[in-house]
Amino acid sequence: MACSTNAFSLSLSSKSASDFNPNSSDFFLRVNKPAKVSLRGSSSGEFNPGRVALSRPSGLRGRICANATQVMDQSVGEKSSKVPTIVEVDLGTRSYPIYIGSGLLNQPELLQKHVHGKKVLVVTNTTIAPLYLDKVIDALTKGNPNVSVETVILPDGEKYKNMETLMKVFDKAIESRLDRKCTFVALGGGVIGDMCGFAAASFLRGVNFIQIPTTVMAQVDSSVGGKTGINHPLGKNLIGAFYQPQCVLVDTDTLDTLPDRELASGLAEVIKYGLIRDAEFFEWQEKNMEKLMARDPDAFAYAIKRSCENKAEVVSLDEKESGLRATLNLGHTFGHAIETGFGYGEWLHGEAVAAGTVMAVDMSYRLGWIDSSIVKRVNDILVRAKLPTAPPEIMTVEMFKSVMAVDKKVADGLLRLILLKGPLGNCVFTGEYDRKALDDTLKAFCKS
Amino acid sequence: MACSTNAFSLSLSSKSASDFNPNSSDFFLRVNKPAKVSLRGSSSGEFNPGRVALSRPSGLRGRICANATQVMDQSVGEKSSKVPTIVEVDLGTRSYPIYIGSGLLNQPELLQKHVHGKKVLVVTNTTIAPLYLDKVIDALTKGNPNVSVETVILPDGEKYKNMETLMKVFDKAIESRLDRKCTFVALGGGVIGDMCGFAAASFLRGVNFIQIPTTVMAQVDSSVGGKTGINHPLGKNLIGAFYQPQCVLVDTDTLDTLPDRELASGLAEVIKYGLIRDAEFFEWQEKNMEKLMARDPDAFAYAIKRSCENKAEVVSLDEKESGLRATLNLGHTFGHAIETGFGYGEWLHGEAVAAGTVMAVDMSYRLGWIDSSIVKRVNDILVRAKLPTAPPEIMTVEMFKSVMAVDKKVADGLLRLILLKGPLGNCVFTGEYDRKALDDTLKAFCKS
Repeated sequence: MACSTNAFSLSLSSKSASDFNPNSSDFFLRVNKPAKVSLRGSSSGEFNPGRVALSRPSGLRGRICANATQVMDQSVGEKSSKVPTIVEVDLGTRSYPIYIGSGLLNQPELLQKHVHGKKVLVVTNTTIAPLYLDKVIDALTKGNPNVSVETVILPDGEKYKNMETLMKVFDKAIESRLDRKCTFVALGGGVIGDMCGFAAASFLRGVNFIQIPTTVMAQVDSSVGGKTGINHPLGKNLIGAFYQPQCVLVDTDTLDTLPDRELASGLAEVIKYGLIRDAEFFEWQEKNMEKLMARDPDAFAYAIKRSCENKAEVVSLDEKESGLRATLNLGHTFGHAIETGFGYGEWLHGEAVAAGTVMAVDMSYRLGWIDSSIVKRVNDILVRAKLPTAPPEIMTVEMFKSVMAVDKKVADGLLRLILLKGPLGNCVFTGEYDRKALDDTLKAFCKS
Repeated sequence: MACSTNAFSLSLSSKSASDFNPNSSDFFLRVNKPAKVSLRGSSSGEFNPGRVALSRPSGLRGRICANATQVMDQSVGEKSSKVPTIVEVDLGTRSYPIYIGSGLLNQPELLQKHVHGKKVLVVTNTTIAPLYLDKVIDALTKGNPNVSVETVILPDGEKYKNMETLMKVFDKAIESRLDRKCTFVALGGGVIGDMCGFAAASFLRGVNFIQIPTTVMAQVDSSVGGKTGINHPLGKNLIGAFYQPQCVLVDTDTLDTLPDRELASGLAEVIKYGLIRDAEFFEWQEKNMEKLMARDPDAFAYAIKRSCENKAEVVSLDEKESGLRATLNLGHTFGHAIETGFGYGEWLHGEAVAAGTVMAVDMSYRLGWIDSSIVKRVNDILVRAKLPTAPPEIMTVEMFKSVMAVDKKVADGLLRLILLKGPLGNCVFTGEYDRKALDDTLKAFCKS
């Protein structure tokens, strides 16, 4: 064949930065809405699930600050609107759009044009179902009486991201006699998206799939790039598939009901994009962290859009993670070790990634690859986002090492890591580093 | 992009028909080798697991006939040799070769050039391991001390083709700390190939995969086309992936140890290729069935090659089964109902397909799409191959209907079937047929 199937290009549409209204007070209304689910996080400015060692001096300590006076950078803000922003993920025949905006679940045509066949299976969990399931069913069926919707409601939490729970999706799909022309819809956070996506990839060897992510984490990370899967008792996401959705619909209104801890967890990934490849975005976050913490919908729509653009660009260039894509895993190797060692579900994914990012940055500094100002800025922004900056006390050097040995980025026995190198916004994915730096970092962050 | 990723072409290499020696007596030696496993089939000319209704008059009744005097058609035969025949499956960047020949497991370089990384996991079963595992490990490691081989030996049989058994493969892979650069090797029949392939597709979202099929069924069918998967209690192969191997190695010497029933089961698929698209091949089989039943290696090498060529051509044109590829499932919709209704493992896959083929042919005749001579020829050749020509007595119309309702070829509630239409070698994949013909066929073959 004359052209390679691996040659992808990226196109981004609907840039409407000029629409930004810095005087919008819309977010005050949203912030004042009573949350319909229990907030698992602390309402103070400190991260406190389990022990958290704030082991480095932090400058500005972040607080929820609804009347923050910082003015959002006009060049990057966007007005929230019923017209969705669209980020196009360009993967040849498997390209798909990400719709981002407020009130999108009230626009049935957006979802319906991506539904194939007459039967839809909505996969969600016990937390999200009471909040948004009826709304999604309405959006799928309004003016479209030929579509029938089945639902499967799974228990909520990373600890249920396993084969046993996955089988419940298959059971429901088969009992409901779904066929190859059906559509699976993931309604929930990253766990639901990953499991529903893997189920869609594997059911009848592949059916259509739509994602409606309801957490920041899922909106900025797991909904882009087609990674699906489940955990194994010995490691995270060890079983899965690369599988692309038909579309991703991010209704930013769903953030209204997101617990503080979940919100912060997603910000860990937002911060990551700045660190690995987008210094300007990192600087925007430094200026706007209080708006994000106050759930300013305009700030969030922008942060989600720019995160998705960054990830879409990386994924378009390297869909199957042969190199570049691995850089999206900054902090994740250390973070996965925390999640596995500490037990899935004790810490949220982003919390573990935040601590892991601090460790990766510490190691980069020990290697002499970055200067100390970056170490401080990373620590500061994570603290302002109410994220942990060290692993839980229970973690030992041995726990890190045993989990890291089965990391997917090990190749022929060599652990490759994502480390910062050079000015802010630059990183490397490499197995060529002084082992002593890794040992020193592990010792610095673990009691034994 | 200028070219579609779906545009595949087929290339076939190593046609060496001119090498055929019709006077070769090599197969007598092979046939006389003592089989090392118990022969589960009957040694008489009749198929007899459970009740078998030979419901139609059969002409020539097949017998094992080692001194058959029929001369193989020179235009299509090939000499068995240490130089493998190669059928190239052309799927763009996922193309792979199928090596076919005698003694190929004694040629380590064939396998080794397709192994990626330093770790190999051989997945096999309790029947095949004592026969060929050492030989395969030798072939993988001879002159190649850097490669380490892990093995997982699964229980033998279709009834173990489930999630629980699949998890044993993941457990072993993870315990052995295999990474993305490892290679999975499937050593066994279709069940092992399908499970190992799905495990390879899903482990770390995809690792390298080699198939060494040891049954006729696996050699002519499941090793070509990338369909992998497991069964669900409610239906066959409902969970899986399309995933292509690096290569397929068919050592025809492995047929020496294949039980008679397994051999005949594979012939059901060989016969199918003739019926759906290759009348000349069907006629060759009519002339050479006794040679095949006597395990003549030249006849088998040819039958495997031509079957793989037919399947490779179909798969190259339609990898994801949007239409054409479905025609490979002649007899399989009825057959799957038998396997599910009767219980996995009671009948072999090819036995169920044989009975299913007779039902599909019967229905085609009722629709007026074929003439009666085809009905008779299909029945006759299946009888000569010692295959059943009717479903087991236990099957009811309701059992067929309930399983067929969840068949993967149902689309929006409509069951599409592969039926013969026109002269020998022509078929259709269609949901447009008179429902009465289906009902009549089911009634004709079921007591209730």
